[in-house]
Amino acid sequence: MNSIARLKELSAEIFDFQNITSLLAWDQEVYMPQGAVNDRSSQLSRMSGLVHGKQTSQELGDLLKKAHDELDGYFEHDRALVRVMQRAYDMSTKLPAEFVTEFTQLTSRSVHAWVDARKKSDFSLFAPFLEKVVQMTKKQTELLGYKEHPYDALLDLYEEGLTTADVERVFDEIKQPLIELLPLVEKNWTSSLAPHDPIAVEAQKEFVRELVTSIGYDFNRGRMDVAPHPFMERFGHDDRRITNRYDEKDIGGALFGSMHESGHAMYEQGIGTDIAGSALDSGVSLGMHESQSRMWENMIGRSKEFWEFSFPKLQKAFPSQFGKMTSEDFYRRINHVRASLIRTESDEVTYNLHILIRFEIEKALIEGTVAVKDLPELWNAKYKEYLGVDVPNDAQGVLQDIHWSHGSIGYFPTYTLGNLAAAQIWRKYQEVDPGYVDTLRKGEFSKIREWLRANMYQYGSVYQPKELIRRVTGEDVQSKYLVEYLRGKYLKGTTC
Amino acid sequence: MNSIARLKELSAEIFDFQNITSLLAWDQEVYMPQGAVNDRSSQLSRMSGLVHGKQTSQELGDLLKKAHDELDGYFEHDRALVRVMQRAYDMSTKLPAEFVTEFTQLTSRSVHAWVDARKKSDFSLFAPFLEKVVQMTKKQTELLGYKEHPYDALLDLYEEGLTTADVERVFDEIKQPLIELLPLVEKNWTSSLAPHDPIAVEAQKEFVRELVTSIGYDFNRGRMDVAPHPFMERFGHDDRRITNRYDEKDIGGALFGSMHESGHAMYEQGIGTDIAGSALDSGVSLGMHESQSRMWENMIGRSKEFWEFSFPKLQKAFPSQFGKMTSEDFYRRINHVRASLIRTESDEVTYNLHILIRFEIEKALIEGTVAVKDLPELWNAKYKEYLGVDVPNDAQGVLQDIHWSHGSIGYFPTYTLGNLAAAQIWRKYQEVDPGYVDTLRKGEFSKIREWLRANMYQYGSVYQPKELIRRVTGEDVQSKYLVEYLRGKYLKGTTC
Repeated sequence: MNSIARLKELSAEIFDFQNITSLLAWDQEVYMPQGAVNDRSSQLSRMSGLVHGKQTSQELGDLLKKAHDELDGYFEHDRALVRVMQRAYDMSTKLPAEFVTEFTQLTSRSVHAWVDARKKSDFSLFAPFLEKVVQMTKKQTELLGYKEHPYDALLDLYEEGLTTADVERVFDEIKQPLIELLPLVEKNWTSSLAPHDPIAVEAQKEFVRELVTSIGYDFNRGRMDVAPHPFMERFGHDDRRITNRYDEKDIGGALFGSMHESGHAMYEQGIGTDIAGSALDSGVSLGMHESQSRMWENMIGRSKEFWEFSFPKLQKAFPSQFGKMTSEDFYRRINHVRASLIRTESDEVTYNLHILIRFEIEKALIEGTVAVKDLPELWNAKYKEYLGVDVPNDAQGVLQDIHWSHGSIGYFPTYTLGNLAAAQIWRKYQEVDPGYVDTLRKGEFSKIREWLRANMYQYGSVYQPKELIRRVTGEDVQSKYLVEYLRGKYLKGTTC
Repeated sequence: MNSIARLKELSAEIFDFQNITSLLAWDQEVYMPQGAVNDRSSQLSRMSGLVHGKQTSQELGDLLKKAHDELDGYFEHDRALVRVMQRAYDMSTKLPAEFVTEFTQLTSRSVHAWVDARKKSDFSLFAPFLEKVVQMTKKQTELLGYKEHPYDALLDLYEEGLTTADVERVFDEIKQPLIELLPLVEKNWTSSLAPHDPIAVEAQKEFVRELVTSIGYDFNRGRMDVAPHPFMERFGHDDRRITNRYDEKDIGGALFGSMHESGHAMYEQGIGTDIAGSALDSGVSLGMHESQSRMWENMIGRSKEFWEFSFPKLQKAFPSQFGKMTSEDFYRRINHVRASLIRTESDEVTYNLHILIRFEIEKALIEGTVAVKDLPELWNAKYKEYLGVDVPNDAQGVLQDIHWSHGSIGYFPTYTLGNLAAAQIWRKYQEVDPGYVDTLRKGEFSKIREWLRANMYQYGSVYQPKELIRRVTGEDVQSKYLVEYLRGKYLKGTTC
């Protein structure tokens, strides 16, 4: 047996065990009775032990070495499999077990401290933990290795190949345009959707189910459940599920949350059967994933034409709430823009400014040019400068996100990368389908999804993110498409 | 480390992996999208491989040997752990891998053939498969070993220590009394509950949730879902879930199905924390389990007093269906007795006659005193003799149960054992709580459950079934309590 055949077996085995682990986690989040926390934590730790053992085994290490020698004779997909398995092997073996244990214990305590600090809106309660997290994260960058900047090592964890220089470049390009765009847009997009007369959760569920079916989420290979936070999870090649949450007075949350998660899920549902059940059988990176969730949620799901098609259905389902509203009015309300304090509640124009602030702070923390204790002041100054808002307290400021307490430094930039890629891919689609406005108006979403499947989704993790975006759009990630998209939509009223 | 400490570790590990496997199976039954069948089957086979490997390991075999030498110095629970682990080890090692594979392949084909044969109501399509199943089952009895009768080896698979002689004794004792009781009861218990005006599934769910909460099913350590067949499943010491099904025109199915499954679940929810997460952390046998599902479903759940307490709630919830009915009338309808063709639809009086027929046939098959091809004729003759009914076709006759196609010969008698034990344990409870009629009338079900927990549930698999029933009731399983219970309830109108 040559190494690639055995690597495929190991990959399939790891794929199965990872999916089982995901099911345990999903069940815990969505169905599991509260009392069963200890059972589940024991089960999860057995499974992670199992996966970790397989992913760091001597056999796998030897096979990967041998495979690298044979690489020239491999098919493209097989070379990709070696790349992705090597990456997982490196991530699992470069960090010594004691380091991982210590970091896990730290972040577990750190998350608790963050929850408490946020509740009391007191950063000083969280600061000592964050200091240790930053310290260990710096150590992590040395263990993982990097070429130019230690922050590169962190970015690469979430977005293969992404560098600090890449992120700086795109933020340099969008920072001023966004800051200038905001006041111009803000004064004209002032109405919002909620609160409306209550809509029962069951009725919302039914509508949302039809909505995501219409854009192409396949319920034969997925399902949608209720959970405190919307997310997408994979349990097998033919099993990509999403969750959603519902607010009786704001159906917008369910509509756009479900389209967002469907975007993630359709990316994965579109992966080719030739790489099913292997390490290639998932979206390649957080940024590429976010490009799809954002594209379906925003570029398509918040477009005027999407609702020209879908609003009559919404009116029919909920006449007392929407019977007297026009499609145009609805469109403007779901695109309400306002500089605000909270990232997760922000709109398309301001979102990336929230991310920019986090990126600048993370980079400074890793470079050691800012002290943890000074973060609230720095945070508040940046919110004032970029978004023009005064942060009244730590809870609504520097303590709002869980990421740092988790040890996930380097994660935030993938959100913006996703937004940029979304705009760029959407622009590309407009080139290949010049009648895209009619495509949306007629609800022919399968045309869009099919193009995405053929040009992007089917490849799973075969191509590195940078290579993938080049293949889909013909160029590297650019900032200009997002800026043009936002200017067009919010200033000129052009579509998409 | 002495052997018992290491055995406990292995037991905990196997417990976790078994629970994970159960979750995969449950999810498949209850939530999984249809398209994901291949993913799940691969995951299940990985997990069974893992569990089987642990359960047949050289290490476990050596430890068990060593533990037997040390047994005198062990605590009672530790001796029990050795007994239960030895049992699982023996079952997994006595059958050679090739035999298991062949049997699995056979029964997989055999189930398909049975489905087809039942659809076409043609036993001859199933007969060749059943012949092979019987042949391999006979071989299985030799591999497993037995003292007196080959059928003992099969009974022991489902009910530790149960012998053919035991089953013959109890059926000898109840056969005539039941056959004589039937016509006397049948003519007086003629009204049934369904069909009634439709009751929405959601409303039924809500009512059933309160009902099973009132008898003591703990939702903090469980949940109730919808599935094609009601069942109970364990995913951890604090996670015992049940399923139920709903028929809009027959709420009875949901009421008694849920009490039945709650009986199973309460048994397991009552297991002591001292044996949590070990091989002892489950009900000890099918028969003991069935005693609890049946006792809560029938002895308690179909008693006059239970509904004196609960019927007003039912009326309040569903006034148009039950507003004009009396509690007494409802009680008589849920206890409708009629000799019928189908075991799963049968009542308390006839149920064990259905089982008797299957037992007699199974025993003859294993003894080789009847040929498979003659089963329909034999089946129909026995239904005429014991139940007085004419079997119109194979589908409603010899093809009605899945068990034989599955290779589960020796399973049926545990149902009757459960019914006998239920009546016996219920009688014992009446002795310790002479005011039991009031206990029911006042809805003080926690008193009953608490007695069961303290005297039976907490022990899990610590005591063998025969020992357990002696500890709970002071004697071996008797037939007379069931007969007395049925005569009292259906002829004399005495309670319970």
